[in-house]
Amino acid sequence: MRLLDQQAIDDIALGASLLGSGGGGDPLVGKLMALSAIKTYGPVRMIDASDVPDEALVIPAAMMGAPMVLSEKIPNGQEFIRAFQALGKYLGKEVYATMPIEAGGVNSMVPIAVAAQLGLPLVDADGMGRAFPELQMVTFHLNGISASPMTMADEKGNNVVLEVINNVWAERIARSVTVTMGASAMIGIYALTGEQLKQHGIHGIVTYSEQIGRTIREAREEGENPLVKLTELTGGFRLFRGKTIDVDRVIRGGFNRGIAIFEGLDEFRGSRLEVEFQNENLIARIDGEYAAMTPDLICLLDMETSVPITADALKYGRRIDLLALPCHPSWRTEEGIRSVGPRYFGYDCDYVPVETMAERRGLA
Amino acid sequence: MRLLDQQAIDDIALGASLLGSGGGGDPLVGKLMALSAIKTYGPVRMIDASDVPDEALVIPAAMMGAPMVLSEKIPNGQEFIRAFQALGKYLGKEVYATMPIEAGGVNSMVPIAVAAQLGLPLVDADGMGRAFPELQMVTFHLNGISASPMTMADEKGNNVVLEVINNVWAERIARSVTVTMGASAMIGIYALTGEQLKQHGIHGIVTYSEQIGRTIREAREEGENPLVKLTELTGGFRLFRGKTIDVDRVIRGGFNRGIAIFEGLDEFRGSRLEVEFQNENLIARIDGEYAAMTPDLICLLDMETSVPITADALKYGRRIDLLALPCHPSWRTEEGIRSVGPRYFGYDCDYVPVETMAERRGLA
Repeated sequence: MRLLDQQAIDDIALGASLLGSGGGGDPLVGKLMALSAIKTYGPVRMIDASDVPDEALVIPAAMMGAPMVLSEKIPNGQEFIRAFQALGKYLGKEVYATMPIEAGGVNSMVPIAVAAQLGLPLVDADGMGRAFPELQMVTFHLNGISASPMTMADEKGNNVVLEVINNVWAERIARSVTVTMGASAMIGIYALTGEQLKQHGIHGIVTYSEQIGRTIREAREEGENPLVKLTELTGGFRLFRGKTIDVDRVIRGGFNRGIAIFEGLDEFRGSRLEVEFQNENLIARIDGEYAAMTPDLICLLDMETSVPITADALKYGRRIDLLALPCHPSWRTEEGIRSVGPRYFGYDCDYVPVETMAERRGLA
Repeated sequence: MRLLDQQAIDDIALGASLLGSGGGGDPLVGKLMALSAIKTYGPVRMIDASDVPDEALVIPAAMMGAPMVLSEKIPNGQEFIRAFQALGKYLGKEVYATMPIEAGGVNSMVPIAVAAQLGLPLVDADGMGRAFPELQMVTFHLNGISASPMTMADEKGNNVVLEVINNVWAERIARSVTVTMGASAMIGIYALTGEQLKQHGIHGIVTYSEQIGRTIREAREEGENPLVKLTELTGGFRLFRGKTIDVDRVIRGGFNRGIAIFEGLDEFRGSRLEVEFQNENLIARIDGEYAAMTPDLICLLDMETSVPITADALKYGRRIDLLALPCHPSWRTEEGIRSVGPRYFGYDCDYVPVETMAERRGLA
């Protein structure tokens, strides 16, 4: 057990934003929610998954929808408490702890705000080890755990409970409710026993986010570029440096979808990078060839500040480094690739791990 | 108290289908559900609203969505029990009785099936006295009663509970869930106390439906046309006789929307009728002039059989009589007209009662 203070939250938000792989929302909005909560209610206790009793109930708290909407439709702080508490009430059990369902600027922070306000511990685990756009894209789903009952709440005061036949129907119905609620909603989902969490969660992800965030912050404090340290820490690869020359983006079906195009700088001059996203970055192509693909993490960092850039914040002229990180091994199983690999998202290609492609490029 | 047997159910389905005003679904599908339920579970007790204790809980049971979908997606009989029971369970109270929320081929029958299967009485009352396309279009809404908590279920086994800030949000969110569930869903909605039901319900509507159905049936048995008797019973007007020459129809946003065009027969030869509908018939124009409009009831009957025809069953060549009936006085209040009058549905005209327009035509 340790206490998360402001510095820890700053670092977690920064690092989780990188693991958000272009999605997961604006870390500033998420961080302000979390910092405001610990200022009012005191610091949050973080525990390991192994500290949770086998029978105890853990409920992840999260935001669902197109994250860029949050900047205009700021949560009032009560809707995620409502969604979270509604699920505990519906299950009729005491809630032992909360946790993130994914890494990302917003969804790493929502459970911290919930934990602070309700005096609950935060478990150092999630169900993705990155961010993904759909509800069934979690390790719990791969292991047969139901997303439902699931609760939803919006900032206006509307609440919904779903009890559905499988996780794909949870995604379908919850997505349509999210769109109707204004393209974002707060959710309580994948209620877990301590035992399920220990077996199927991705452990240590909050600490890992914090390490990444601290690496970026300390490098910036020293006036250095953190890319080398980041690749060492994550086992990832720097694949490109360039300037944003086009972003084509639309909010459709409750998702932020589109493509961004970059022209190379420095040693990449003359090359061209394309990144396609659905909330998260899904595919990176360099000069027309795949360079990284889902479920590996495709992360864009601001070239000057090394701050991760979400797909909804990309703008013409922005200079970026592309960092690609290997995903958690759970996603590289047959079922994992079927759930979140390139074919699921409509790309006609087999998954190739980023290390393999980097090796082909002479980078590894 | 009286028992509803097969004959009563036949007559109620027929009469309610007329009051459905073109909507409310196929009375055959509804009737089969109700008859199958009383065959298995025995006849249904019908009680008056005045028989319900003031504090008792009454839950209307209904189908939501585009009714024509039901013919292809036949309810398996469990989804309306699930939606109904979920609301009682959510409220944590014993349910005293059920009732229809509207008249119509399906929604007059769903509560009979629920009453039979659960051994509950059916209250002889509803919240419309006809059918309307949206959830907030009930007398309970006019009197400040909340549609929510509201429950929804589909034939696949998905269940949803809504607890929302007002009835317009109930309509919005439930509509998007209905569309996702496949354009139809079963619902439990407008949980009422006996006192609320006595004050704000439309009483005797099941009996009234039965009288209308019996009038049509007996006339057919005698080989007579029931139109004169129907206008006497309902205070309505026969406004047109004609042949269907065009139907333009689309399922959009979970509604069956469109327009039907008829050319006159007999004394109406040379005239042209247009009827626009959104599940229910909303507007009738004869030779370009309004002849009847929502909230009055615009009912099309088969010219040969006098069976009411729903908007989704209209086909080229079908010969019809147009019967227009005055709506319940609740809908002619200022708030009633605002909620379901022509302007609500996008028509740029003030509501004129059907009697007034009939008088102008020299019919009254």
